[in-house]
Amino acid sequence: MKPFKIVTISGGTGGFTMLSGLKTYQDLDLTAIVTMTDSGGSTGQLRDELGVLPPGDARQCLVALSRNSGVMRDLFTYRYQEGQLTGHNFGNLFLSTLEKITGDFTQAIEEAADVLNVEGSVKPVTTTNTNLCVDLQEQKKTICGEQDITQYEGLRYFGIERMYLDPPAVINESARQAILDADAVIIGPGNLYASIIPHLLVEGVPRALQETDARIIFNCNLMVKYGHTDGFSVQDFAREIETYVGANVLDYVLYNTQRPSSELLERYQQEGAPVEFDKTETEKDNAPAFVGADVIADELYSQVPKKDLLRRTLIRHDPEKLARELYACLKN
Amino acid sequence: MKPFKIVTISGGTGGFTMLSGLKTYQDLDLTAIVTMTDSGGSTGQLRDELGVLPPGDARQCLVALSRNSGVMRDLFTYRYQEGQLTGHNFGNLFLSTLEKITGDFTQAIEEAADVLNVEGSVKPVTTTNTNLCVDLQEQKKTICGEQDITQYEGLRYFGIERMYLDPPAVINESARQAILDADAVIIGPGNLYASIIPHLLVEGVPRALQETDARIIFNCNLMVKYGHTDGFSVQDFAREIETYVGANVLDYVLYNTQRPSSELLERYQQEGAPVEFDKTETEKDNAPAFVGADVIADELYSQVPKKDLLRRTLIRHDPEKLARELYACLKN
Repeated sequence: MKPFKIVTISGGTGGFTMLSGLKTYQDLDLTAIVTMTDSGGSTGQLRDELGVLPPGDARQCLVALSRNSGVMRDLFTYRYQEGQLTGHNFGNLFLSTLEKITGDFTQAIEEAADVLNVEGSVKPVTTTNTNLCVDLQEQKKTICGEQDITQYEGLRYFGIERMYLDPPAVINESARQAILDADAVIIGPGNLYASIIPHLLVEGVPRALQETDARIIFNCNLMVKYGHTDGFSVQDFAREIETYVGANVLDYVLYNTQRPSSELLERYQQEGAPVEFDKTETEKDNAPAFVGADVIADELYSQVPKKDLLRRTLIRHDPEKLARELYACLKN
Repeated sequence: MKPFKIVTISGGTGGFTMLSGLKTYQDLDLTAIVTMTDSGGSTGQLRDELGVLPPGDARQCLVALSRNSGVMRDLFTYRYQEGQLTGHNFGNLFLSTLEKITGDFTQAIEEAADVLNVEGSVKPVTTTNTNLCVDLQEQKKTICGEQDITQYEGLRYFGIERMYLDPPAVINESARQAILDADAVIIGPGNLYASIIPHLLVEGVPRALQETDARIIFNCNLMVKYGHTDGFSVQDFAREIETYVGANVLDYVLYNTQRPSSELLERYQQEGAPVEFDKTETEKDNAPAFVGADVIADELYSQVPKKDLLRRTLIRHDPEKLARELYACLKN
């Protein structure tokens, strides 16, 4: 049987979780397309100091797809806690230094994939060195930098006039080809405005999603993010994706139906609330099939480095449950 | 034919040059034993900040023995020129971070050897975290740290009362076994007091050199180092080695007979003068066979990173000539 070609379009820790789960299905041929707008932490510092492309998202996907269980994986997730290197991540250093030497981020990813014995492949959505920017509606204000936008809590209140990449970025040809050749494309999980939409702002990505024959699945966020997506229903998330693609491309929307534990919700209450499916909304023509399932992690997912966890979502997908439900959407 | 088992006991760039040459002989099975007292530059900083063993000498030998010709070799020799990472070497970071994760420098070397597709093996002489120290005769003064000793120009003038490791270090069992099993052991090239003798100060090394049936060859220094070995003849170098081993173990002494170009000698005149064979000295019983040959590089050896070159010897061995002469000593 020919393997089923899957392309994922995700960001950050959510992508890591999904790929860790999907990797266990032997009949899937995985290509992870990664955002190239990260500007925070170790990644941001390497961009500033070495003038390289952001390595962080690629590194997370490489580790997720690594067949190694041992020390090389640990090496690529290692974050220095001492001295001059504090805050840097070794995997990021590996990618950025190779890019510095070869002048080619794609080659750097390939070398790292070799060292990590990676299943499938990881492709940057673009190799243009660019930044995510947003013009706000109600203030004559522009915010640039993925990290600043992630942390900005006025996005929903002031309204998004326009999101864009500065300078404009063009799709990496090999990522474009992967989308066109795919049997299925999975969009998400990932922060809507800071991880998913930055993919869709790359010139050529919406068109590739419109042109491909692949089944397109949106993996809906578990939680709204206060300041960004307050009050968004499952349908609102899906609509926003299609707005940025410029067409009704979604075939499936997978959303979570299991309420997080009250303990987790309490710890999370400053940040967001569960995303609900809006039962009052009447179904439209051309609407995707909405599939609800329990895809949430019962406990904190321990494979993610603690330092990353602290900065990010506490309520997260369960890699096995998510992969099982996605696999069903792919194959039915 | 069974491969000929060679153990090298050297340090720094000299070891790199020799191994690069010997590697081309397919019938040699090479084990590079490396000093563990380096305290300068990137290595010194990693020791201080991460509490790890010194990675620098092991890294140089790994690169020398790498079968790869491409980008992974470049990666392991890369030195950052910008930002917070300035001065660090990537290969050192790789080894030190792996040691930090596994708590085992030997395992770190093995992982790096795997990534670099290394021919032969590299073994630390000891895994005791130690420092080179010297008590001077004519001043009540102690100097500790390999780098400080290398740079100290009063060693010869004030006289060495005692060189020692603090804390005392014990031979790495796998290095001991390699010496005992070897067909030949090559001592040098390397700075006498800062690179070669630190090996001989490790408890168990002199005894292993006395017990092994291997032919033992001393690869004599090309140049005396002012402040350390002013006026030393080839025989003086050999005698000093045997003094620290505590027995007449040397079978061969290979020394250079070709005078460096006057241009190189001029550039080098602040640092030292060519080592000469003392023809006036009468040959003793038990003396090694002295073999003179042209083993000097006609021009600056370009495979060594420029940054390293600047800090180190300008007059150096030619890897091919040196390997050819050593091979003759091994096989005749």
